[in-house]
Amino acid sequence: MPLLVQKYGGTSVGTIKRIEAVADKVIGYKNQGNDMVVVVSAMSGETNRLVSLAQDIDSQAKGRELDVLLTTGEQVTIALLAMAFEKRGYPARSYTGGQVRIVTDSAHNKARIKSIDDENIKRDLDAGRIVVVAGFQGIDEDSNITTLGRGGSDTTGVALAAALKADECQIFTDVDGVYTTDPRVEPDARRLNTITFEEMLEMASLGSKVLQTRAVEFAQKYQVPLRVLSSFESGEGTLITTEYEADDIMEQALISGIAFNRDEAQLTINGVADTPGVAYQILGPISDANIEVDMILQNIGADGTTDFTFTVHRNDFDTALASLQKAAGSLEAREVSGNNKIVKISIVGVGMRSHAGIASRMFEVLAKEGINILMISTSEIKISVVVDEKYLELGVRALHEGFDLKQES
Amino acid sequence: MPLLVQKYGGTSVGTIKRIEAVADKVIGYKNQGNDMVVVVSAMSGETNRLVSLAQDIDSQAKGRELDVLLTTGEQVTIALLAMAFEKRGYPARSYTGGQVRIVTDSAHNKARIKSIDDENIKRDLDAGRIVVVAGFQGIDEDSNITTLGRGGSDTTGVALAAALKADECQIFTDVDGVYTTDPRVEPDARRLNTITFEEMLEMASLGSKVLQTRAVEFAQKYQVPLRVLSSFESGEGTLITTEYEADDIMEQALISGIAFNRDEAQLTINGVADTPGVAYQILGPISDANIEVDMILQNIGADGTTDFTFTVHRNDFDTALASLQKAAGSLEAREVSGNNKIVKISIVGVGMRSHAGIASRMFEVLAKEGINILMISTSEIKISVVVDEKYLELGVRALHEGFDLKQES
Repeated sequence: MPLLVQKYGGTSVGTIKRIEAVADKVIGYKNQGNDMVVVVSAMSGETNRLVSLAQDIDSQAKGRELDVLLTTGEQVTIALLAMAFEKRGYPARSYTGGQVRIVTDSAHNKARIKSIDDENIKRDLDAGRIVVVAGFQGIDEDSNITTLGRGGSDTTGVALAAALKADECQIFTDVDGVYTTDPRVEPDARRLNTITFEEMLEMASLGSKVLQTRAVEFAQKYQVPLRVLSSFESGEGTLITTEYEADDIMEQALISGIAFNRDEAQLTINGVADTPGVAYQILGPISDANIEVDMILQNIGADGTTDFTFTVHRNDFDTALASLQKAAGSLEAREVSGNNKIVKISIVGVGMRSHAGIASRMFEVLAKEGINILMISTSEIKISVVVDEKYLELGVRALHEGFDLKQES
Repeated sequence: MPLLVQKYGGTSVGTIKRIEAVADKVIGYKNQGNDMVVVVSAMSGETNRLVSLAQDIDSQAKGRELDVLLTTGEQVTIALLAMAFEKRGYPARSYTGGQVRIVTDSAHNKARIKSIDDENIKRDLDAGRIVVVAGFQGIDEDSNITTLGRGGSDTTGVALAAALKADECQIFTDVDGVYTTDPRVEPDARRLNTITFEEMLEMASLGSKVLQTRAVEFAQKYQVPLRVLSSFESGEGTLITTEYEADDIMEQALISGIAFNRDEAQLTINGVADTPGVAYQILGPISDANIEVDMILQNIGADGTTDFTFTVHRNDFDTALASLQKAAGSLEAREVSGNNKIVKISIVGVGMRSHAGIASRMFEVLAKEGINILMISTSEIKISVVVDEKYLELGVRALHEGFDLKQES
């Protein structure tokens, strides 16, 4: 019997009515002859309510006890959903992360899954039960309750699908799939039927927040076919799969989509000596301040010196600039500059691997619109440009048109 | 180092402010040199909120999933209380019932504790931590989450105190101890400094709802000194202990208190054959209808027949009467009668064991007030009378006065 692992997020289970709608949806799949494992998040608003209780006691609440508190959110949902199945005459059983024995490391608030015990779930499936599992949570080796951090429920779904060798892991969200770009920016954006894991990873890390990067990485690593669907509308969604299969479906275009990231800021230090250890001297203090760095570019400068540029989240700009100015002194740099009014636009596609000329077409499209490129960075399946923030919408739409991604009507 | 197990109920932890007050109170005991284990209930209102969510899905919600749902209530409290300790600089660690390994049978919604693993808690106490445990909950041998049913948090407290060989189990409630009778009926009621387990059991089962009977039985069985105190006021409360210690304190009066039960109804079947099996034929159907029977009296009647009377909760009167009338046919009884306007008043005290004349003094006091006694039933440390409900307050006050229980001023 095929086995599906489905994950429903907080909005999809936000009210009793919606939990009942999820129950009906899952029963539909069950009646089609599938074994069903359902992973759920806390009802929307519940996690915020719990965090606010914690903050009333300790504004810096974190660590072990925050995990004990927050995991009650999903525990409420699994019980209610299991009741809804039972009420409809479908035997069901709920499991907390600890009850499954989703064993993680001990990094509270951002734990990583180490192993999953599939014994209980398999026994329930064999007995014809629908299994409901709390997302986002696990226990460490000493049975302390842990949480997986942001997007943890997606990770739970994928990890369970991998452990149970499910036929597909289906992530139900409030969008009906992965689009060629954000439909709020380009109304002609088109839903993709398939996308590769690598493309999805580039899209996700570039700001297309349909799926958490971690869940996609996990799915890729364990070769779990992953599908994004809407909780509220019917449709096939988008299947995220390996390159081979995606090619096989004969749908592979050169470019799958246009991703972008609004909240970037760029920092540059010019004219530092081109000697070993310079990059570390520049980025070490940034990293020590817990600032995440996105793009890093180093270019050959004049007179045996080098120019070094990196981007950070706009919120971290002031801290990063101060740190860089401090480092500039000891590095005897010529100049430090920065710009927090920039955005990054990227084209993503496995097809560009084997096709020359993608980059030049991208630059041509932008030039035609008079958009000045401030930075360029490339990876195997992605080309990113940094431009002034005022060009974001224009740039995305022009590239969407230029690479012929628009909706087939 | 002395070890105290303290239990705080839902009202005592009903708001963040109150949770913080509990933290301060516990720290006070800790600073006096005690090891502290704290058992807490769900914040008041939380259990009702969860039950109402469940009932929105299934008005008959019960069983395994209801336990998964309800146990989140205490889990929220333990996390918040542990945070409050940590915030105040006192290392603390919270435990769900499952994390302690409070192992119960599998009777969901009304499970009984089978064993408690004290290893984790002892290690934490040795490390100087305050341990916070969720009341009311456990897991069965298969790690299914269970709840202990009504008053379960008291039972958790006592069971932990027994397992850890605590010096005292302290139950903090909204009253400051056990009284000679209900102060709402007799304003001169006096707080008892000590009471024996047996007396407490009689008081509790007779309607003095300070402690759940189950917790008292448990404490008696494992010889755990039990103290009832107020969460909101200071004071020594009432110590519930073994008879010997109570005597030792030289405070033992003949009678400890006057208990009463308002919601009684009485059913009588007259003139049934005095043959084996009659009692079963009468009470079997009552018990099959899940009606709890309180007093049972059988008297010798005329002509080799017998009269049989029992009392039930007033809510069950109609069902019980119908069942009894049905049984009367096959028993060829002379008459079936009932009265649902009665109350039970009892005097309780280990002192009456060794003192004759207690019963006659009780009847004398009631006679003086013109109160007609409908039924009498006695046990080793208790005498109960059933009277018309209109005499409840008068009877309680007269006995309180008659046995000299009034407040010493």
